[in-house]
Amino acid sequence: MAKVAIMGYGTVGSGVYDIIKTNSDKLSRSANGESVDIKYILDIRDFDDHPEKELFTKEFNDILNDDEVSVVAEVMGGLHPAYEFTKSLLEAGKSVVTSNKELVATYGTELLEIARGKNVNYFFEASVGGGIPIIRPMHQCLTANNILKIAGILNGTTNYILDQMIRKGKTFETALKDAQNNGFAERNPAADIEGHDACRKIAILASLASGKMIDYNDIDTDGITNITLDDVKYAAAMDSVIKLIGYAQFDENGKVYSIVSPMVIKNSSPLAGVDGVFNAIMVTGDCVGDVMFYGKGAGKLPTASAVVADVVDAVKHSDRSKKIFWEKPTENIMADIDSKKFEYFVRTTDSAENVQKIFGKCEFVDNIIDNESAFVTSPLTKSEVEEKLAKLSDVVANIRVMD
Amino acid sequence: MAKVAIMGYGTVGSGVYDIIKTNSDKLSRSANGESVDIKYILDIRDFDDHPEKELFTKEFNDILNDDEVSVVAEVMGGLHPAYEFTKSLLEAGKSVVTSNKELVATYGTELLEIARGKNVNYFFEASVGGGIPIIRPMHQCLTANNILKIAGILNGTTNYILDQMIRKGKTFETALKDAQNNGFAERNPAADIEGHDACRKIAILASLASGKMIDYNDIDTDGITNITLDDVKYAAAMDSVIKLIGYAQFDENGKVYSIVSPMVIKNSSPLAGVDGVFNAIMVTGDCVGDVMFYGKGAGKLPTASAVVADVVDAVKHSDRSKKIFWEKPTENIMADIDSKKFEYFVRTTDSAENVQKIFGKCEFVDNIIDNESAFVTSPLTKSEVEEKLAKLSDVVANIRVMD
Repeated sequence: MAKVAIMGYGTVGSGVYDIIKTNSDKLSRSANGESVDIKYILDIRDFDDHPEKELFTKEFNDILNDDEVSVVAEVMGGLHPAYEFTKSLLEAGKSVVTSNKELVATYGTELLEIARGKNVNYFFEASVGGGIPIIRPMHQCLTANNILKIAGILNGTTNYILDQMIRKGKTFETALKDAQNNGFAERNPAADIEGHDACRKIAILASLASGKMIDYNDIDTDGITNITLDDVKYAAAMDSVIKLIGYAQFDENGKVYSIVSPMVIKNSSPLAGVDGVFNAIMVTGDCVGDVMFYGKGAGKLPTASAVVADVVDAVKHSDRSKKIFWEKPTENIMADIDSKKFEYFVRTTDSAENVQKIFGKCEFVDNIIDNESAFVTSPLTKSEVEEKLAKLSDVVANIRVMD
Repeated sequence: MAKVAIMGYGTVGSGVYDIIKTNSDKLSRSANGESVDIKYILDIRDFDDHPEKELFTKEFNDILNDDEVSVVAEVMGGLHPAYEFTKSLLEAGKSVVTSNKELVATYGTELLEIARGKNVNYFFEASVGGGIPIIRPMHQCLTANNILKIAGILNGTTNYILDQMIRKGKTFETALKDAQNNGFAERNPAADIEGHDACRKIAILASLASGKMIDYNDIDTDGITNITLDDVKYAAAMDSVIKLIGYAQFDENGKVYSIVSPMVIKNSSPLAGVDGVFNAIMVTGDCVGDVMFYGKGAGKLPTASAVVADVVDAVKHSDRSKKIFWEKPTENIMADIDSKKFEYFVRTTDSAENVQKIFGKCEFVDNIIDNESAFVTSPLTKSEVEEKLAKLSDVVANIRVMD
């Protein structure tokens, strides 16, 4: 019988509790016959009306010092005290599983190293893509591949907002307000709409793919706050959509080009059809080509189901580290994203004639707004495009096109 | 150092060889530092010009009797002697990995049982969806879920043919001929276009999801040979496409409704956008909701990359069975698919008035062919729809609509 603890009884934590209670038979079969029993739930709040209120504790040390507890689900979120708790637990020889993307992106390298040293596991399937299987498939199933590229719709809030703009013709502001009213966006939506959430997730995926820590602070991050309804309409006229993409491309020397940015995506890409709060991650391997993983990127039960799967895996591997990890690189592995060439979709009030004089060969898009020129450039580095844009009289929009 | 053998040096087998040779460093890191070395390649043909011709043998016993060989990749295909070889190897305490869907669907239950008894592994990630991670994600990542439904585009040949009909307006016959000319269809295409290939794959997925063997002989299987270009055009008029779907639905009593059949799918479903030779599998779990796995369902390197990932996993777990398995059910778990209600898309030369008299409430589709009525029924069992169809003067087409 495996004794587990849940740290944090919020949305995900209560989902973990519910699933372990409801699907206990199935979990026990999956865990090689071992039953999975919750011994503690850590939360600073009172849950006196809870049917198993005796499980609740406010004392972290109850869990840390209980030798019976072998696996802990950290679903409290935030950096502190989640970091200190996780570190202590791993050092005490307990496996920890988490949905905490901020913690994994910030302290993952150190925590994975401790887990490896102690021959226990630190699993984080739920930290990216909620319930979508992505960490384990990338690590195990694509292990024969060198990963060439990852491009993901990693944030459901921004995807919902863009989708409302694309399908319902709402402005950004209206779509954001609707997302807030429907519970798909926080009152303070900055972490989502400015791309910081997606940035942490692509940092985790890129670290996993390269085996070296990618610091999210090194990833250029644009959000969707500057995307207008007119941009979205132009994209539609190009048989495309605009999506917020977490992007990482790996060159043959192990260098990583990574960015979070709105990108114009052709409708023929499977990523283009990913609607509403759904997430999807396209991974390109040198052998397998493109594979995509799709599903709900957030929500109580989807996320909790990924946490519980990690709990089961940790129970099954209680005596060995599965060695899902990355290490600190000894030299800088970030390539300069500004040196990577993208095509850009540009809108300007300048004339088509001037555009052609400055940009040479480029593909014009039928006008939607009077007195505008809209076009797609040839592939250019950031400094190249900026130099050319500076020569135009006025630039209304410039958005990367996904390669 | 792990010594492995490859049985069968065809398309997939040579891909396995190539990947192990090319990505050896990466594989060794994935296999906890153990290098993965090919000791034998079994094939009845001569490969005298091969740079490592000394690896080739025509004697199965060379592999069976070599205690150094711990993992064998069976990529020879067909039932015999693949079955006898696999059985002997597992009984001798060697792990076997395979891309052989026919063998897994036919003898998987017995082979998995032997592997479990011997504490070795029988892995078959490549048997469904080629390089797409699906077996391991379903088994591990979705383990907290009760699987409610699986709906998959499991055969690239038929998907290519339907896609050519949908996008290029080709007839079935022309599209098939083009597929054959492009190497996407066999000279004898029956196994693909009559649905037998998809049937074995959905049987494997359904067995894995339920933990009980689903016999592919018990799954009703329709192919796409009766689908016409006009059917495809009507689907487009309904903002839908026609896809060949491997389908399994699980009820709360553990019964399985399974079928392979062309189905009308709304374009809003992510499955609708799966083009060309790509495959995709949508899995619905009670916690996670819909997740989809997408990628190349066939081809040398995609399939081989899944085989090699299994080899690495078998090397890592050389001392323990991972217990991916299903068992023979003690009672019949197949529910009668004919008793399950589907909506049907129907074309008839009978009048709309008669249709309404017979079918009551149903949704008419704008005519594409003169003197036809085209409509979608309410959800009906097979006997209900057949009884009603028999009353129409002439039925041109009737195709299930995916629920």
